[in-house]
Amino acid sequence: MMAGMTETPHPLYARHADTLTRALTAITERGYWSAYPESPSPRVYGETAAAEGKAAFEAYLNGDFPLDQPGSGDRVATEASPFGLELNVRYPHAAADELVAAASAALPAWRAAGPQGRAGVCLEILARLHGHVFELANAVQFTSGQAFVMAFQAGGAHALDRALEAIAYAYAEMTRHPGTAGWEKAVGKGDPLRMTKTFHVVPRGVALVIGCNTFPTWNSYPGLFASLVTGNPVIVKPHPLAVLPLAITVRYAREVLAEAGFDPNLVLLAPEAPGEKLATTLALHPAVKVVDFTGSTEYGEWLEANARQASVFTEKAGLNTVVIDSTDDFAGMCRNLGFTLTLYSGQMCTTSQNLLIPRAGIDTDQGHRSFDEVVAGIAAAVGKLTADPARGVELTGAIVNDSVLERLDEVARVGETVLESRTVEHPAFPGAVVRTPTIVKLTADDTATYSREWFGPISFAIATDSTAHSLEIMRATVGEKGALTAGVYSTDEAVLDAAEAVAIDVGVHLSCNLTGGVFVNQSAAFSDFHGSGANPAANAALTDGAYVANRFRVVQSRRHA
Amino acid sequence: MMAGMTETPHPLYARHADTLTRALTAITERGYWSAYPESPSPRVYGETAAAEGKAAFEAYLNGDFPLDQPGSGDRVATEASPFGLELNVRYPHAAADELVAAASAALPAWRAAGPQGRAGVCLEILARLHGHVFELANAVQFTSGQAFVMAFQAGGAHALDRALEAIAYAYAEMTRHPGTAGWEKAVGKGDPLRMTKTFHVVPRGVALVIGCNTFPTWNSYPGLFASLVTGNPVIVKPHPLAVLPLAITVRYAREVLAEAGFDPNLVLLAPEAPGEKLATTLALHPAVKVVDFTGSTEYGEWLEANARQASVFTEKAGLNTVVIDSTDDFAGMCRNLGFTLTLYSGQMCTTSQNLLIPRAGIDTDQGHRSFDEVVAGIAAAVGKLTADPARGVELTGAIVNDSVLERLDEVARVGETVLESRTVEHPAFPGAVVRTPTIVKLTADDTATYSREWFGPISFAIATDSTAHSLEIMRATVGEKGALTAGVYSTDEAVLDAAEAVAIDVGVHLSCNLTGGVFVNQSAAFSDFHGSGANPAANAALTDGAYVANRFRVVQSRRHA
Repeated sequence: MMAGMTETPHPLYARHADTLTRALTAITERGYWSAYPESPSPRVYGETAAAEGKAAFEAYLNGDFPLDQPGSGDRVATEASPFGLELNVRYPHAAADELVAAASAALPAWRAAGPQGRAGVCLEILARLHGHVFELANAVQFTSGQAFVMAFQAGGAHALDRALEAIAYAYAEMTRHPGTAGWEKAVGKGDPLRMTKTFHVVPRGVALVIGCNTFPTWNSYPGLFASLVTGNPVIVKPHPLAVLPLAITVRYAREVLAEAGFDPNLVLLAPEAPGEKLATTLALHPAVKVVDFTGSTEYGEWLEANARQASVFTEKAGLNTVVIDSTDDFAGMCRNLGFTLTLYSGQMCTTSQNLLIPRAGIDTDQGHRSFDEVVAGIAAAVGKLTADPARGVELTGAIVNDSVLERLDEVARVGETVLESRTVEHPAFPGAVVRTPTIVKLTADDTATYSREWFGPISFAIATDSTAHSLEIMRATVGEKGALTAGVYSTDEAVLDAAEAVAIDVGVHLSCNLTGGVFVNQSAAFSDFHGSGANPAANAALTDGAYVANRFRVVQSRRHA
Repeated sequence: MMAGMTETPHPLYARHADTLTRALTAITERGYWSAYPESPSPRVYGETAAAEGKAAFEAYLNGDFPLDQPGSGDRVATEASPFGLELNVRYPHAAADELVAAASAALPAWRAAGPQGRAGVCLEILARLHGHVFELANAVQFTSGQAFVMAFQAGGAHALDRALEAIAYAYAEMTRHPGTAGWEKAVGKGDPLRMTKTFHVVPRGVALVIGCNTFPTWNSYPGLFASLVTGNPVIVKPHPLAVLPLAITVRYAREVLAEAGFDPNLVLLAPEAPGEKLATTLALHPAVKVVDFTGSTEYGEWLEANARQASVFTEKAGLNTVVIDSTDDFAGMCRNLGFTLTLYSGQMCTTSQNLLIPRAGIDTDQGHRSFDEVVAGIAAAVGKLTADPARGVELTGAIVNDSVLERLDEVARVGETVLESRTVEHPAFPGAVVRTPTIVKLTADDTATYSREWFGPISFAIATDSTAHSLEIMRATVGEKGALTAGVYSTDEAVLDAAEAVAIDVGVHLSCNLTGGVFVNQSAAFSDFHGSGANPAANAALTDGAYVANRFRVVQSRRHA
């Protein structure tokens, strides 16, 4: 029903219409669906894909990244790999004004392409990126410190799924109104009033995406594609330590845009020189009307308060919490939580930090377990996953940057360490900085310690008076500081309900009794929302109507029919 | 597909489901539809409705308004009728904290009612208000200064249509995701992973609606009902000079809520004592998470900058503009514009202020018309509509407040007055303050004069070098100051297209060649968007997805199936 749907659809739209239709169904049903296979197996991707992707990645190292953008020609190289690799990729550097001017000039023709034309191009970009998913995975691995399989999944397939999800929401939102409508109103005995109305989808302006170090693609793609498909040219400002994954993304996006006859400056990379504060300059630029940010609470709140000319979407820090009341599968609970704490050395924004456990212990299928036994069970599960360095590093990956190491030093002094963080030699990368998770015992009174985020492989086992007390602490801390995830273990329906009531009150997503292959720190695109926007950890969810609806406006014209 | 839809639907939902379904279709099609007849004729509303409504209105005068709300028991009476009536209605007065506390306490049960339960109650409130539409119309007339028929239509039927439209958008948004979803993911050769996911619609908190003097109901209802149906208790802060229409609204809303078993404090009236600045206190309250405001640019921008804890929706001032290039119906154009300038003495936020006309004149079906002849034609049309006082006042109504009179004095000194504003004796209300529209001639160089809003019966005929110059002025002034409406008259498709291109660039809705019964200052619910949110005159449109999507969040819980 869009204007132009009776005309031949854009060829790229036609090519990807089935995928978009399936995605539109998926966001309505929110059951399981994925468009991009998450297994890097040669059976899925072919025998040569992995080696080709690795080679493509390696070809970027110690060289000028191939990107033809406006700018003076100088280059920046700011990355340092958590795996100890020498990266030294040199990216073209431009001033904020140059980038914004180039993006602004590209806007009108992109706006005129309409929802269908833009969706076709964006879906072709995703297809192109998927064709280079091993290249992307290597780039994510060696900048973020994620182990390869996780980098392939979270940084590749799942990031593409989240991008598609954002495109689907935005397309649904742009096309919920017809492109043109007839309007006929009876008036007395005369001819009816007849008007033809045209509804134009109009972007907000230039969009800015500010990437993070740990999930350069996964956390950037939803905003990037939600803004782009709604007509906004996008400037991608990567984290200085994780530029390559987004540089590759921008490279292929520009390639597709140019092939489709659009100005490639619709997607621009904005790498920054050390200390340049390019994100701040861009975020305050009057032409920048949408900002997506993932990172610290401090900077996220600064953006919300200061980038007043823009709609600002932020994901910040929080206090992910698990309330442990009882379980009918003690071993499964410990395994499940142990995996959550170990994966990517706890460097996910969704990793549980505060484990609230009654000091008198809990009832389990193995009988009563004391507080110390519960903590020991979780610690043992972590220990088992990390005991063998070769297998362990495929879960933990490497430590993303020095601030995590500093926190690991600091946390050893705040309470009794139940599980010590160990330094592990990476069998394949001798320069990799690998640390196993630590668990520190606290009491409910140690509020000052556990009510701040300790990003990294750091969790607290907090002894409470009772489960009711645990829920009170969850309410107070998540209410005040926010969280992206919460979990509860209980065999008592009343406790599960009480936890759900608290989760609703403080606006955090809750996972109940996870003992198998689903983990509190993982969310599935098209089904799970990531973040709620209902607590201080994030002002938006990935992805829902509110995430896309403010990225464009409808401007109407009407004429007598 | 909401959780609970297999259960018996809420009886109020069942009662109004057909209306809601029809409204949901209307917002998808955006053709003509209305749920509430706009004709106050006895043939539509019955022989006694008008008299009963008038009597109900009069019963409020010089008395304590019947509203049982929290508070100390003191009362405020701040209204002064543009028609010279003694109103002296005394409203219960409460402190901001009392109102917020009462609203907050009402939230959990309302949240738990779910989208369907809340929609049923909100639709019943609309039905109840519709049953009292003559009472409302009288209250709107005698506080805003609108003539009766307009008060009935804009303040009654159309306001209810806009409320229903907002409810429909919000309901669609709340139910675009299922209440529960199954999720099943195949994993290797074992059993698939199976989860049951529950998606809770969670309101943002307490909502505040700040009403205006001219359209106390029409401009307040969309925000009021969008916030209420999404689960937010609403505090309604009326303009001190237009309390009664919103007091009546709150009265019947509370009646319906109580009958349906909910806390009536879900809707609260917050009349203020002179100089109290209650809107500011409420808008900055940490529990207030949504603010809707209609009024001055200055205060709207203050709210946007300072009510940082809330989503703020504002409609402010702008420079409504008409570009006159040529016409094949000179008489129709003059009649149409004359009506627009005359209706409610130009005191609509959508009334055209700046008429941009080439100084060399325009081509018409009556031959070439000089600049002065075009202006004279429009002035004559205004003159004809206002010549007879008895008929004139049924269009102009009365002047809403003294600041309009002050501007009328001031404008007589800024240029050559082509059409003088006249004082008219109202035949029925000797105390009524009635003024006819004025038109002042300016040149394109008088930017300082025409680039501010002169709210009231004030328009400028601005001589430009050419239509291209007119479009440049439109681009510059609307781009910088915003507008709610724009119009263009031309027989040249290229000019219409150029005007539409400018309208898209500056984000203003455009009406082309209106010469009949549709006017640039009127928008039809379910079809026309009011405001675009794409220029400085408003940061949101009535009503679209962006207007409702940020009023709630989805909080998810998941369990193994």
